[in-house]
Amino acid sequence: MADYREMWSLLDMDLEKHDELCAVLPEFYGEIYMDQKNRPEGMNYFNMVVSEIHGLRVKELNDGKKDGKKVVGTFCVFVPDEIITAAGAVSVGLCAGSDFWHPDGEKIVPKNTCPLVKAAVGAYFGKTCPYFQSCNLIVGETTCDAKKKAWEIFSKEIDTHVMELPQMKREKNERHWEEEVALFKEKIEEVTGHTITEEELYERIKLHNEKRSVLKRLYDFRKVDNPPISGKDVLLITQIAFYDDPKRFIEMTNKLCDELEERVKENSGVYEKDAPRLLITGTPMAIPNWKMHHIIETSNAAVVAEETCTGTKYFKNLVSEEEKDMEGMIKNLASRYMKTNCAVFTPNKNRIDDIINMYKEYKADGVIYYSLPFCTCYAAEYMSVKEALEKEGIPVIMIETGYGLEDAGQIKTRLEAFLEMLDK
Amino acid sequence: MADYREMWSLLDMDLEKHDELCAVLPEFYGEIYMDQKNRPEGMNYFNMVVSEIHGLRVKELNDGKKDGKKVVGTFCVFVPDEIITAAGAVSVGLCAGSDFWHPDGEKIVPKNTCPLVKAAVGAYFGKTCPYFQSCNLIVGETTCDAKKKAWEIFSKEIDTHVMELPQMKREKNERHWEEEVALFKEKIEEVTGHTITEEELYERIKLHNEKRSVLKRLYDFRKVDNPPISGKDVLLITQIAFYDDPKRFIEMTNKLCDELEERVKENSGVYEKDAPRLLITGTPMAIPNWKMHHIIETSNAAVVAEETCTGTKYFKNLVSEEEKDMEGMIKNLASRYMKTNCAVFTPNKNRIDDIINMYKEYKADGVIYYSLPFCTCYAAEYMSVKEALEKEGIPVIMIETGYGLEDAGQIKTRLEAFLEMLDK
Ligand code: SF4
Ligand code: SF4
Ligand code: SF4
Ligand code: SF4
Repeated sequence: MADYREMWSLLDMDLEKHDELCAVLPEFYGEIYMDQKNRPEGMNYFNMVVSEIHGLRVKELNDGKKDGKKVVGTFCVFVPDEIITAAGAVSVGLCAGSDFWHPDGEKIVPKNTCPLVKAAVGAYFGKTCPYFQSCNLIVGETTCDAKKKAWEIFSKEIDTHVMELPQMKREKNERHWEEEVALFKEKIEEVTGHTITEEELYERIKLHNEKRSVLKRLYDFRKVDNPPISGKDVLLITQIAFYDDPKRFIEMTNKLCDELEERVKENSGVYEKDAPRLLITGTPMAIPNWKMHHIIETSNAAVVAEETCTGTKYFKNLVSEEEKDMEGMIKNLASRYMKTNCAVFTPNKNRIDDIINMYKEYKADGVIYYSLPFCTCYAAEYMSVKEALEKEGIPVIMIETGYGLEDAGQIKTRLEAFLEMLDK
Repeated sequence: MADYREMWSLLDMDLEKHDELCAVLPEFYGEIYMDQKNRPEGMNYFNMVVSEIHGLRVKELNDGKKDGKKVVGTFCVFVPDEIITAAGAVSVGLCAGSDFWHPDGEKIVPKNTCPLVKAAVGAYFGKTCPYFQSCNLIVGETTCDAKKKAWEIFSKEIDTHVMELPQMKREKNERHWEEEVALFKEKIEEVTGHTITEEELYERIKLHNEKRSVLKRLYDFRKVDNPPISGKDVLLITQIAFYDDPKRFIEMTNKLCDELEERVKENSGVYEKDAPRLLITGTPMAIPNWKMHHIIETSNAAVVAEETCTGTKYFKNLVSEEEKDMEGMIKNLASRYMKTNCAVFTPNKNRIDDIINMYKEYKADGVIYYSLPFCTCYAAEYMSVKEALEKEGIPVIMIETGYGLEDAGQIKTRLEAFLEMLDK
């Protein structure tokens, strides 16, 4: 890895503490990722991205900043990237997936806070994440309690814009969300000093739709009988989608997909024959949270899809490209984002349909309901999901687990019992 | 106590399980309440109300139901009682304050759910609360995650209306809340089959303002140097305000206040001279949650005020009586309720001013920041409150505790250390 210490130091990072992170990540990644059998060549690009995780991309962002490009950090798939990129700014997803950041987080938010928020707060206040340190603005949303209150804490230190996500999905709520998208556009224009034109926004709508489409192309390969790529690899690619340059990401993922197309023709897969196929549903898995996938895929089972925000929720719905006027595009953006079936809404019945449909589409044999601890919305929704899946005869178990590995053995035992029970 | 078993059985209650509750409550109440020194005579009415907690008032509700009166259950001080009572229905607060209901609650909601919500769910699904069993409608709100998701569970069994509380307090949010109040009026009219007239609503606005004023009168006695009533007793009265008949409640509380007026003249108080005066701020204390007050007031300290929803938040702001037309009254109702500074909003800076002002008004010596476990909003807000209070030189400690008494000794120890530190 090139030496980025000077850059990190200019970003006012805590270099010593950050070194600790840099010291463990490569080995951690190596153990989880590099031992996989018959891995596609195209994963090399993503290996490189991880090895350069706090380097190359951060350098790109900061080179851009020298030319006046702003960096905007987000925490939720409800925040429309189209607006950010249309104004010439760069969008980076800031959710954090390691308990490395928890001690610093716990100095600021309650111990009983979901690992994702705790890690994000810790990464920022501990000054150990160069993405955070590069941001000109962070964008919050009123989704869950933990995040709602985190914005107040961030806003003491950094320009923070909060989008008020409706809590329900009635007709009037969609109007409300349109207003919020329009307010967000104003804020982004203020921060970038750039008034977004209709052409710019339209072009970005098409770009992000293209990014969604390539992800859909990638996920479709998992539907085949002998998947040519592991769930773990697809999770990584999706995580990287949150902060990589969109154009390069599209290009590299398409390249990988070309290879996967060949593999499918040759019936070249990555799993044992008859590995049980699992669908994961639940809370997002921020990089480097690969825990659940790793446990599953080292237990002779396959993760064939994720009904999560680091899964299909991220790319499933496209923005309509019908309208080219500003008002029409804002409406279309709002309407596309409001289709996301997150457990923070009440009620959220359509998520159940999504899970059942995905179970069929991806030919899954069972469902893992994954929840981070202290995520009340997702944990509470399990009851209704379970009821509905059982009615359909779909096997499901709930696994609530944080970032630490101390419960990995116990999860493996529960998982194996579940796998044995499946009708394979 | 009269025999209400027939009534409870008609309400489809689990009589055996309910007997267990009836068996412990009187003794529990006796220990906490009946040993207090120099208690005002006027507390006898409230003793009676507690001794008849699942009897007399429930009978009143059900006698009313025979005459077509509807019963509406609520869980938050944002739900406008004026609308409910204007339609001739009765409003009852359903928050539950005992861990008796937790085992039944944990069958349905995650273990890591705040005790208040867990108990409410358990009371309903365990069929051990006659108030729940008497309801024609329950009214939810999108406040915190735990409640937001609880409505979906309740709605499977009982007519449930959800008011969408805004998550922020910008100008546009007040407009939104007006719409929600208007929608709520429609729903109540539908459930009661009664169209609310302007006269009816105006009369109820005045009635509930009167109820608020008598509570203010009561709380004002706690500002004097030698308070004539304990914090524990005032908490009980406020808890009872959530479900007692408003007119009778006003009458009996005024009577008690007349007595307190005499006591103040005679300088007759309930605490030791120089007992440190504490202000409590934080999550609501639903009946029979008297734990914190009991620990404090058996540690030679006084609770002189509560900045909580079972304290000043319940009565602090009056509805303007200026307008008498429907639109004007809806606006005034919405505006009054939106003044409530709950931690579910982001940001919620005005709560800090409330705490500081109350600290001065009630001549407190220190602040107890009380939070129920898993209440992310209140727990997270502690950081900002602490910072602000420390800037003002106001001593504060955070005590996070549930309904069980297993940690009472430990809390007492921490409290005593805090009291020693106070500048008394
Ligand atoms: S789970 Fe919900 S709150 Fe979290 S990123 Fe997804 S949509 Fe946003
Ligand atoms: S996982 Fe749950 S608690 Fe955590 S940020 Fe997402 S919605 Fe909030
Ligand atoms: S604390 Fe907030 S959510 Fe709870 S009753 Fe009070 S206003 Fe409602
Ligand atoms: S105490 Fe907190 S978590 Fe519990 S119902 Fe009230 S706001 Fe929600």
